[in-house]
Amino acid sequence: MPDSRETTLALDPKYDATGLITAVATDRATGAVLMLAHMNAEALRLTVDTGEAHFWSRSRGALWKKGETSGHVLRVTDIRIDCDQDAVWLIVDPAGPACHTGERSCFYRRIERERLVLVA
Amino acid sequence: MPDSRETTLALDPKYDATGLITAVATDRATGAVLMLAHMNAEALRLTVDTGEAHFWSRSRGALWKKGETSGHVLRVTDIRIDCDQDAVWLIVDPAGPACHTGERSCFYRRIERERLVLVA
Repeated sequence: MPDSRETTLALDPKYDATGLITAVATDRATGAVLMLAHMNAEALRLTVDTGEAHFWSRSRGALWKKGETSGHVLRVTDIRIDCDQDAVWLIVDPAGPACHTGERSCFYRRIERERLVLVA
Repeated sequence: MPDSRETTLALDPKYDATGLITAVATDRATGAVLMLAHMNAEALRLTVDTGEAHFWSRSRGALWKKGETSGHVLRVTDIRIDCDQDAVWLIVDPAGPACHTGERSCFYRRIERERLVLVA
């Protein structure tokens, strides 16, 4: 029997034991995956309500608006949720580099066997 | 001080307490996020070695080759790892629907306030 979360048109996020779902952001223009982070219910609500990506920082134990200090906000043009409602996909227009390292995307290295190679 | 995982060109995945990293797969042709899942070290190694996506099923507690029974394998054309090496991005050519529901992508619903809307 399919989980009702798969078929419903009601938003019913399946938060994990720590109250979080996973969020992945892709660049609307390039399709690149920019970053992966986590959201609690408040971060998801704020993202939907404001159109700017909010997350929950597991390391700091705090709600976090992406770009709050750097100005590199992620303007959300579309939010999708997956079959079992434990992950969301944000399609965004980034105001600057999405990675705290200054890279446009956090995924700036390719895995080639045991080595990593910088992506142009 | 930046974490050495951010700057190294050595593969050094940061597995969580349960031995997993997060994996997101996007369609090489369309850029769509197809699915989000988890990998243990063996799933990552098999994915790199075989060029087909392998995951760890948290619900079944078992290694899982995507498409093993359905035939809907994900052929991996590129694997990238994020800044802190706790997530990988697979760019794939899917052999069929990526979602077990039969949808091409697990993200077949858009969040609009409290409601979900099916994406065409």
